Amino acid sequence: MFEIKAKDGKARVGVLKTNHGDVKTPNLMPVIHPRKQTIDVGKYGADIVITNAYLIYKNEDLKEKALENGLHDLINFDGPVMTDSGSFQLSVYGDIEITNKEVIEFQEAIGTDIGTSLDIPTAPYVTREQAEGDMEITLERAREAISYVKDNDYDMMINSVVQGSTFLDLREKCAEELSKLDADLYPIGAVVPLMEQYQYKDVVDVVMHSMKHLPDDTARHLMGAGHPMVFALAVAMGCDLFDSAAYILYAEDDRFLTTRGTIKLENLNEMPCSCEVCCKYTPDDLRAMDKEERVNLIAQHNLHVSFAELRLIRQAIYEGSLMELVEERCRAHPLLLDALRCLGDYSDDIEVYEPRSKKSAFFYTGPESLKRAEVTRHLNKMRARKTKKNLVVLAGNRKPYSKFINKDYKKFYLYSLDEDNLTEEELSKFEDGIPEGFDLNIKDENTDYLVFDIPFCLIPLELDEVYPLSQNEAPKINDEIAVEFARDFLVEYAEKYDNVLIHPRIVDLCELDYIDLYVDPERIKVRKNDLEKIKSIADYQFGDGAGEALFTGKIEIEKSKKTGKIRHIFDKKQNIVNMRASDSLLILSKLGAKRLYSCSEGMKNKVMISNSVESFARDGKSVFSKFIVDCDENMRSNDEVLIVNEEDELLAFGKALIGAKEMNDFSVGQAIKTRKGFKK
Amino acid sequence: MFEIKAKDGKARVGVLKTNHGDVKTPNLMPVIHPRKQTIDVGKYGADIVITNAYLIYKNEDLKEKALENGLHDLINFDGPVMTDSGSFQLSVYGDIEITNKEVIEFQEAIGTDIGTSLDIPTAPYVTREQAEGDMEITLERAREAISYVKDNDYDMMINSVVQGSTFLDLREKCAEELSKLDADLYPIGAVVPLMEQYQYKDVVDVVMHSMKHLPDDTARHLMGAGHPMVFALAVAMGCDLFDSAAYILYAEDDRFLTTRGTIKLENLNEMPCSCEVCCKYTPDDLRAMDKEERVNLIAQHNLHVSFAELRLIRQAIYEGSLMELVEERCRAHPLLLDALRCLGDYSDDIEVYEPRSKKSAFFYTGPESLKRAEVTRHLNKMRARKTKKNLVVLAGNRKPYSKFINKDYKKFYLYSLDEDNLTEEELSKFEDGIPEGFDLNIKDENTDYLVFDIPFCLIPLELDEVYPLSQNEAPKINDEIAVEFARDFLVEYAEKYDNVLIHPRIVDLCELDYIDLYVDPERIKVRKNDLEKIKSIADYQFGDGAGEALFTGKIEIEKSKKTGKIRHIFDKKQNIVNMRASDSLLILSKLGAKRLYSCSEGMKNKVMISNSVESFARDGKSVFSKFIVDCDENMRSNDEVLIVNEEDELLAFGKALIGAKEMNDFSVGQAIKTRKGFKK
Repeated sequence: MFEIKAKDGKARVGVLKTNHGDVKTPNLMPVIHPRKQTIDVGKYGADIVITNAYLIYKNEDLKEKALENGLHDLINFDGPVMTDSGSFQLSVYGDIEITNKEVIEFQEAIGTDIGTSLDIPTAPYVTREQAEGDMEITLERAREAISYVKDNDYDMMINSVVQGSTFLDLREKCAEELSKLDADLYPIGAVVPLMEQYQYKDVVDVVMHSMKHLPDDTARHLMGAGHPMVFALAVAMGCDLFDSAAYILYAEDDRFLTTRGTIKLENLNEMPCSCEVCCKYTPDDLRAMDKEERVNLIAQHNLHVSFAELRLIRQAIYEGSLMELVEERCRAHPLLLDALRCLGDYSDDIEVYEPRSKKSAFFYTGPESLKRAEVTRHLNKMRARKTKKNLVVLAGNRKPYSKFINKDYKKFYLYSLDEDNLTEEELSKFEDGIPEGFDLNIKDENTDYLVFDIPFCLIPLELDEVYPLSQNEAPKINDEIAVEFARDFLVEYAEKYDNVLIHPRIVDLCELDYIDLYVDPERIKVRKNDLEKIKSIADYQFGDGAGEALFTGKIEIEKSKKTGKIRHIFDKKQNIVNMRASDSLLILSKLGAKRLYSCSEGMKNKVMISNSVESFARDGKSVFSKFIVDCDENMRSNDEVLIVNEEDELLAFGKALIGAKEMNDFSVGQAIKTRKGFKK
Repeated sequence: MFEIKAKDGKARVGVLKTNHGDVKTPNLMPVIHPRKQTIDVGKYGADIVITNAYLIYKNEDLKEKALENGLHDLINFDGPVMTDSGSFQLSVYGDIEITNKEVIEFQEAIGTDIGTSLDIPTAPYVTREQAEGDMEITLERAREAISYVKDNDYDMMINSVVQGSTFLDLREKCAEELSKLDADLYPIGAVVPLMEQYQYKDVVDVVMHSMKHLPDDTARHLMGAGHPMVFALAVAMGCDLFDSAAYILYAEDDRFLTTRGTIKLENLNEMPCSCEVCCKYTPDDLRAMDKEERVNLIAQHNLHVSFAELRLIRQAIYEGSLMELVEERCRAHPLLLDALRCLGDYSDDIEVYEPRSKKSAFFYTGPESLKRAEVTRHLNKMRARKTKKNLVVLAGNRKPYSKFINKDYKKFYLYSLDEDNLTEEELSKFEDGIPEGFDLNIKDENTDYLVFDIPFCLIPLELDEVYPLSQNEAPKINDEIAVEFARDFLVEYAEKYDNVLIHPRIVDLCELDYIDLYVDPERIKVRKNDLEKIKSIADYQFGDGAGEALFTGKIEIEKSKKTGKIRHIFDKKQNIVNMRASDSLLILSKLGAKRLYSCSEGMKNKVMISNSVESFARDGKSVFSKFIVDCDENMRSNDEVLIVNEEDELLAFGKALIGAKEMNDFSVGQAIKTRKGFKK
C-alpha cells in the first residue's frame, strides 16, 4: 500500500507499507548481491533493498538457504526486500532457465516483500516490431503474474514493469494496460542504456509518457537509476523509488558519486562532500590503502551522498521547492539541461498536479523557469479572465506592487486606441499627441490595471499578494528570452482591449512598436478599493462571478492591525471568508460556502461524494478518496472546495489535499480536509 | 607569504605561509569569540581562525592572559590566527578606545600571526563625501601600520583593508593605493551589509573593482563572508579567504547553512546534507534536545558544510571547472543569478587570468555561459584572424566536427556574393539561382571552412580539436539567446568575405535574411589537409604567420596508431613540435622554438628575463617570477613561450604557469616551467 504525505507537482513524499515495515519515498534501494555483499547498507541509510531472485534460484546453495531460512535471513537485512526476476539477466544473456510462474512462485516462497514478473527489457532505439512484440510478452506475463498471485492468495506485493523501448506511444499503451491490472508497484524499465549514454532528454520523454497512464496512488520505480545526479529530475517526473548497484560498482572502480557527476579517485585533489569518509580521509589516504578498505570507504561515501540527496529532495517536496532543486541539479551537465528543457514541454501535464499554493516562493533560475507549471497556470487563468474596456499596464517595482505604484513615471504611452468610438474630427486632433481635453475615459469601473513583470507577465493589481504572484523572485538583470516571453503575452493580451496605456519603462524594455502618443499619468487615477480587490481574488480563485456572489450585503472588512492586510470579511457580523496571510487566498466560512455554492454551476468548485458517507461529511469529518463520485476537473490540491452529495446538495466544505486527477485515481487516503459540515 | 598552486580564471588554489603553519586556500577562518568558544573548530576542519584583538584588549582578564601566555594559548588553537582590530566595533558603536598604533602593538605583543590596522568600514550607499573621508583615514592608518611594523621589525603579517563603500572608483583607488604598501594580505571590507540584503550584484561590482588593482601574488580576504552559498562566486572573483561567525550565530538561532541557502530547524522535515550530524540525527531528534547540545550539533553541521564546499571549490580549480560550479551555485537564489549575470560584464578582466587549456570540458549551463572568458577569448581570436576570399559555413554535428562532415546537407545557401567581380551579364544569370556553369571558385586555398555551433559560434574546421573548441558540451535544445548570439557573430564575421555559402540548417536556425540562391554541395569540396591543419593551429596558438615559419622544409607528420591523431611533426627527422592529445595544442621542440623565435616580432610569444639568470635558463632551469623583465601581454597560463634575455636572444622555451598580468605582479614562485635551454 502507498500513501501520499506531501506533494509538489508530480513529485510526492509517500509511505510504502510492506510486511517488513514502512518506507518513506522517494527512496533508493541499494542492490544487494546475494553472494558477495560486504557493505551493511542499512548502517548507511538504506530502508529497503533489492536483490535478484533469479541469481538465488540459480545457485543451489543460496536457493536452499533462502527456501529454508527466508530471503531476509539470507541477505541479512530485516527491512523490506524487493526482488527482481531475472529479466536483467535475460537482457544480457538472451535466455534464462526459469518461467514466469516459477519465478513468481519462488519469490513468494523465499518471502520477498515485493516480487517482479519476468518482463522483457527492450533496449532503446530497436525496431518498432521488436518493441511491440516484447511489450506484448511483458504485458502477458504481468497479467499472468498478477492473477497467479491473486489466485494463490500470495502475501507478496507485485511489480508490473512498463516497457516499450523509446516508442512513446508504446510506453503509454503499456502503462495503460498495466494500470488496469491493479499491480502494487509500477517500475519503468530499460532506461539504463539511455542514462549510460547521457540521453537524459529521451529519459524524460519515456518517463513522462509512461507516467501519464500510471495510477497516481501507486509507487513508481525508475529501474536501475542509481546516480544521485538524476534523482531530483526523476522525482519531479513522479518517480518514487530507485535501485542501483552503482554505489558498489563505482566504488570498485574508484569512482565517487556526487550530485554533480562522477569523479575518479585519480583525479581527486580534495574529498568531494561533507560525509564522514570525506571529512576523515584525504584522496592520498585512500590511494595508499589496500583495495578492499578503499572500496568499502568509497561505497560508504556513495551511499551517504545518495541518501543525503534523497533527504534533500523530500525536504524540497515538503517546502514546495523541488523544481528549484531540479533546475539547479540540471546544470551539472548540458545534457541534463537538455532534459530540463524537454521537461518544460510537459508543463500542462505537471500543472494538473501542482498545488495551488506552496510554502516556498517561486524562484526564477533561467528561461527554463518560464515553462514552470505556476507560470502556465497563471497565463491560462488570465486568458480566461473577463476584461474591461481599457487597460493600463503598470511597471512592477517592488512587491507587493500596489504599495509601490505611482512613483516613477512621467507619462504613459498609448499603445492602442479605440478609433471606432471616435468621430473623424476627434481622431484628427490626435495628430500631435493626445489632446488635452480629450477624455480617454480611464476610470476604475471600465479599466483593468495590470502590472508587467517577469516571470508572471501580467498581474492584476488587485491580485498582487496572491500566491505566487507576490511570492516569487527573479533576477533584476533580465534575460532576453524572459522579456520576449512577457512581451508576447502582453501583445496578445492587449488585443482584448479598446484602449491600452503602457508605462514607458515597459515600452522601452519590450521595444513595443507603434507608440506615438502619450498621456499625462495625472489623468489616470489608480484607486485602491478593498471590495474590488476581494472580488477579484474570489474570481481568480473560484471563477468569474464568485466575487459578486460572495460579497453582497453590508460588507465589512477587518484588517490586521500589525500588517494592514485584509484578514476577515463579513456581511454585517457574519463571517463570509477569511484571507490567509501567507498567500492572500480566501478561506471559506459557512456563509461563504453557501454563497459560493449558489453561484457554482455544474461541478464547478465541487466534489461530489457518495450518499453513503453524507452524514460523515455533514459532521465535519474528512473525505476519503474512495468515496468521491465526481469533482471539478480544475481542482488542484490546496483549493477550497464545496462538498456535495449525489443530488448536488451542499454537505460541507474544506480544503482539497489532492487534485482532480488524483481524486479520480486514488482509492486510499484522505482527499479533502473538511473545514465544516452543514448538519441536516 | 602566498604561493599559487593551481589557477582557474581569477580563482586560485594557494598556500598561505604563516609562523604557525601553512594554510591551503581558498579557506574559511571561523571566528573565535575569545570569551565563549564552545566548539573545537579545528576538529571540524578549520586550518586557520580569526579572533578580535580589540575584545581581548578591552577585557582586563583576557588581555593579561593573552600578554602572558600568548593568543594561541588563550583561544586554545595552535594553527595560524588572524586578528581583527576593532573596526567592526567601530562600525557598530561609532567609537572605540584604542589608537591604530596601539592596536598594532597589541596584536604583535600577543603573538597574532596576521594583524589588522584600524580601518573604517564604510557602509554601502553612504554619501560620496563620507566614503571618501573614511577611505582617506583607512589609507592613512594602513600606511602608518605598515611602516610601524617595518620600523619595529615585527614578526606578524599585516592586513590592509580595501574600503570605499559602493563607489566603484573609490574601491579602485583604495586598492591601488594599498597595493603600493606591500601589505601581506588584502581584505575587502564592508560587504557584509550588501550580503545581508542579498545585494549580490553590488558585491560583484565592489569586489571586481577592488580586485582589479590588488596584486595577484597576495591573498585576498572577503571580510565577513561566511555563507557557503557565496563561496564559489567569491572565489571566482579572486577571493582566497573568508571569515565568519555564521556557523555559530546561525546555530544559536537554529539555522542550518547549506550551499543552497539557510533553513530553519522548524522548517526541516529531513536533514539537509551528508555530514555526520545529518546522518545520525533527525530534525525531531534535534528539536527534542536541550539548546546547548543542539546548537553544538548545528554548528558542527555548519562547519562541515562550509569546509566541504571549500574542498569542492579547490577541487574545481584543480580541474578547471570552477565556473561550472559557480553557475550551478548561482541558481540557488535569483539575486545570486543576478550576480552571475553581472559577473559576465567582467569577462575581459577574467580572460586575462584564464588558462589557455584546462583539464575539464567547458559546459554550457545557460545564456550566462556565453559571457565566459573562453568564449570571449575565442571570438576575439577569430576577429583578429586573417581571412580568405570565400567562406563556407558548415553545420556542427558531432565533435570532432571534421569527422562528421559531408553527411547531412543537400544544398548550400549563398548568403552573400561578390558582385563587384561579376560582369553585368554574369550577374543577370543569377536571377534563377546560381547558374550551373558558374565558377564560384570555392577552393581550399581561397576558402575558409568554419563550423557553426553553440557556444563558440564559428570554429575553423582545422581547429576542431583544439581546446576548448572540441572540449565543450551544450544542450541539444538550443535557447534563443545562444542562437542569436551565434547568429550575430556569424553576420559580423561574414562581412569579411566576398562570397559566403551557408549550410541550410544554419540558415533555418538563425532565420538569416536575403538568401535566395543555392548551390549544390558537390561543387564544394572540403579536403582534409594535415599541413594546413597544423599551420592553422600554429597561427591560432602563436599568431598569424607562425604556421608558415614553423612548418617549412620536408614536413613529416606522425600520427597515433591508436587514435589516428597527429602526434609529432618533423622537418626530415628533426622534431619541430608535438601535438598534445588532450587539447591539440602544439608543444615546441628546440627546432620549433628557434623557428617561432625567427617570426616573433617584439615581445610576441616571449618572456624576457634578467641577464643575471641567463645561464640558469640556458641550463633548462625554471624561471621565477622575480626575474621577469617583460613579457607578451597576450600570454596566458599554459601557453608555450620563448625565453629571451634583455638583448632579445633566445635562451630557452617552456610552458607559462601564470599569465602576463601575473608575471608582472608576482615576486615569488615559478613563472615558467622551462622545457629546454639553448646552451651557449
